[in-house]
Amino acid sequence: MSKTHNSTPLEDGYRMPAEFEPHRGCWMLWPERGDTWRMGAKPAQAAFARVAEAISAFEPVTVGAGRRQWENARALLPEAIRVVEIASDDAWMRDVGPTFVVNAPGDLRGIDWQFNAWGGLDGGIYFPWAQDSLVAGKVLEIERADRYRAPLVMEGGSFHVDGQGTLITTGECLLNRNRNPHLTQKQIEDNLKTYLNVHKVIWLDKGVVMDETDGHVDNLCCFVKPGEVLLTWTDDTDDPQYDRSRQALEMLSAATDARGRRLAVHKIHQPDPMFIKEYECEGLDASETAKPRRTGDRLAASYVNFYIANGGIVMPLFDDAHDRPALDLLSRLFPDRRVVGVRSREILLGGGNIHCITQQIPTG
Amino acid sequence: MSKTHNSTPLEDGYRMPAEFEPHRGCWMLWPERGDTWRMGAKPAQAAFARVAEAISAFEPVTVGAGRRQWENARALLPEAIRVVEIASDDAWMRDVGPTFVVNAPGDLRGIDWQFNAWGGLDGGIYFPWAQDSLVAGKVLEIERADRYRAPLVMEGGSFHVDGQGTLITTGECLLNRNRNPHLTQKQIEDNLKTYLNVHKVIWLDKGVVMDETDGHVDNLCCFVKPGEVLLTWTDDTDDPQYDRSRQALEMLSAATDARGRRLAVHKIHQPDPMFIKEYECEGLDASETAKPRRTGDRLAASYVNFYIANGGIVMPLFDDAHDRPALDLLSRLFPDRRVVGVRSREILLGGGNIHCITQQIPTG
Repeated sequence: MSKTHNSTPLEDGYRMPAEFEPHRGCWMLWPERGDTWRMGAKPAQAAFARVAEAISAFEPVTVGAGRRQWENARALLPEAIRVVEIASDDAWMRDVGPTFVVNAPGDLRGIDWQFNAWGGLDGGIYFPWAQDSLVAGKVLEIERADRYRAPLVMEGGSFHVDGQGTLITTGECLLNRNRNPHLTQKQIEDNLKTYLNVHKVIWLDKGVVMDETDGHVDNLCCFVKPGEVLLTWTDDTDDPQYDRSRQALEMLSAATDARGRRLAVHKIHQPDPMFIKEYECEGLDASETAKPRRTGDRLAASYVNFYIANGGIVMPLFDDAHDRPALDLLSRLFPDRRVVGVRSREILLGGGNIHCITQQIPTG
Repeated sequence: MSKTHNSTPLEDGYRMPAEFEPHRGCWMLWPERGDTWRMGAKPAQAAFARVAEAISAFEPVTVGAGRRQWENARALLPEAIRVVEIASDDAWMRDVGPTFVVNAPGDLRGIDWQFNAWGGLDGGIYFPWAQDSLVAGKVLEIERADRYRAPLVMEGGSFHVDGQGTLITTGECLLNRNRNPHLTQKQIEDNLKTYLNVHKVIWLDKGVVMDETDGHVDNLCCFVKPGEVLLTWTDDTDDPQYDRSRQALEMLSAATDARGRRLAVHKIHQPDPMFIKEYECEGLDASETAKPRRTGDRLAASYVNFYIANGGIVMPLFDDAHDRPALDLLSRLFPDRRVVGVRSREILLGGGNIHCITQQIPTG
C-alpha cells in the first residue's frame, strides 16, 4: 500500500508541519522489554496507558504492541484507543516512527529514517534494533501513507521545527561520530533541508545532562509557536545542567529563524536533580545487550519533553516542587490548550519521556 | 478503538451481506508454517501473492504477516497491497477473521467467533491456535470496526449467505461433536439467526471428500445470486464424491429460501481426483502438533472455492481438463464480472483454497 518514492519531500513540495499544527492523531508503542522496564514493565505500562488516555481526550491514539503483549495492551488501554500489532525492540515511537510531511492539498507522506538505536555499537542503547527499523514502514502501511527513505541516521526526537522553515537540533547528537560520521555538518544540514523542507537550521551544542540519546533537542527546548522557544533551565549554577542551558540560551538569543525573526526564549525550571533509586533497579532482567540502569545514576528529567495535542498539552510531572510552576507556565504559553500533567517517572527510568514515546500525524 | 458490544447483530439491526454485494476490500494472511507448507512455505507464498495480486485488480487488499515474515511479505507483494503485522498460527483468514455485518446506513461491525482450529484436540488440524484466536480482533482494530463476540465455535468457511435471509451450511461441520457439543441443532441454528441476521438455515449433510475442515460448505457449494446456488459435482458414480454431491443436490432442490423461492442449482464438475505427490511431502518440517500430509492422500479440490470481488471472480485452477469448462461456466453465471483463474495447487496442499484464504469487507 505504501509506495516508496525515490524523490525527496523538497522536490515533491512536502514539508514537516510544527507539532502545534492540527493533528489527525497520535501513534505510540507499548513497553515490554524486561531489561529496560522494571517488574516486567508493568509500572511503565501503567504510565504509558495514562499518557495514551490523556492524549486520546484530544485526538485519536493508536498504540502498537508486540504479539506477546497485544492482548494485554488491548485489555489495559481504554476502548477508544486503537491497539495494533507491531513488533519493536523498545517503545520510543518519536525516534523509530515515521516523520510525517504534508503538501499543500493535505496529502500525507512519511520519512523513514535510518535507525541505529542511538549510536549503534558505539554508545547505542541496545542491540539488536532490527524490529525498530521496520516500525516506520509498518505505521505507514496502516496509515496508507507513502514513504521516503532518507539516507541519514536520525531520530524524530533530535529535531524540532516551527513549520515556517526553521529547525533546531543539537551537535551533540547529529554531529556525533556514532550517527553519520561519513557526512559533514553541511551535508547533514542539506539533508535536513531536503527531507523536512526547512531553510534554516539552528545548531545548539549540548542537550540535557545524562540524556542517553546524546542530547536530543526534544528534552532541551522546543517551539511554542513560530518565533518563540521554551528552554529547560536551572538557577543552580553548580548544577552541570546550568552551563548547558546557559549556552543554549545564548545561541538561541543570537539566532534568527527562517523568516529573519529573533527568537523569544522562555525558560522553564527543571525539577530538582533526580536519581535512580535502589528499588527502581530491582526487577530488571539481566542483559548484556542493553544499557545498564544503576542506582544513583542521574535521570534526564525535563518538563520540555511534553506532547502538543489538538487543543491540549500532555506534560510530565515528577512530584517535584517545580511541577506546579511548570504547569502554570505551560498554561500561560499555550492559552488555547488544556494542559494535563501525567506522573511519568516510570517512563523517565527507561530513558525518555512523553514526547519521546509519541508521534503526531498532522492533518496537513 | 474496537468497542465490544454485549448485544447481538439481530438486536442492533446488523446483517451479513452476501459475498456478491459490494466490498470495501479484502483481507488475507501470509503462509509461513513449515510443517504445513513445503520448502519453507515459499511455493505457497508465491501462490498467495498471485491470489492477492489478482484480487487487488478489483478491490483493495490487506495482507497480515507475522513479525518474522512481514519484511518478506512486503517485498514479495505488489506495492498496491497493504501489508500489516498480524501474528497467526496459519493463514486461513476466512476461518479466523471476523465475519462482517452491516446495518442500514452502512455502519460496519465484525463478529469474532470462537475458534478451535477446526476441532481442537478432537480432530483439529494443529495446536496451539492462540494467535489465530486474536486475528479477528486485530483486524477489527485496524478497520476501526466494533466487535461482537459470538458464543459459538464457528469458522467463516462453514456457511454462506444470500444476503436476503438464507444461510447454507453442513451438519458434518456444525453438528460435529468437536465444535459445539453442548448445543442442540436448534440452538446452533438460533445462534446463526441471531448473529448473521438470517431467517432460514438450509442444512446440507456432508462437504467434499477428504476436506479436513469437516466439510466446510464453501468447498461444496455457494450462492451465485439469491435463489441460485453452484454445487461441485462429478459424473463418476464410483467417486466417493458422487454420493455427497448427489445428496446435496437433492437437499438443495427440495429446499426453499427465506423468501420462499425454490433454489436453482448449477453443477460445476470437479477436477479429476488429485493426490499428494511424493515430492510435495518433501521439505515439510517434522511436527507432532500439525496434521500430517502424506504421499497419496487425496486433496479436496473444488472449483467452488473461489472469491467474489467487486466486478471479478478469482477462481482456482488445477492444470486439469475441467479447468476450462469451469472457467467458462463461471463466466456465464457471473456475466458482469471478469473471471480470473489462479493456479492454486500449492494452496490446496495446505488444506484449502482461494475462498478459505480471503475475507471480504462489505461496504454495507
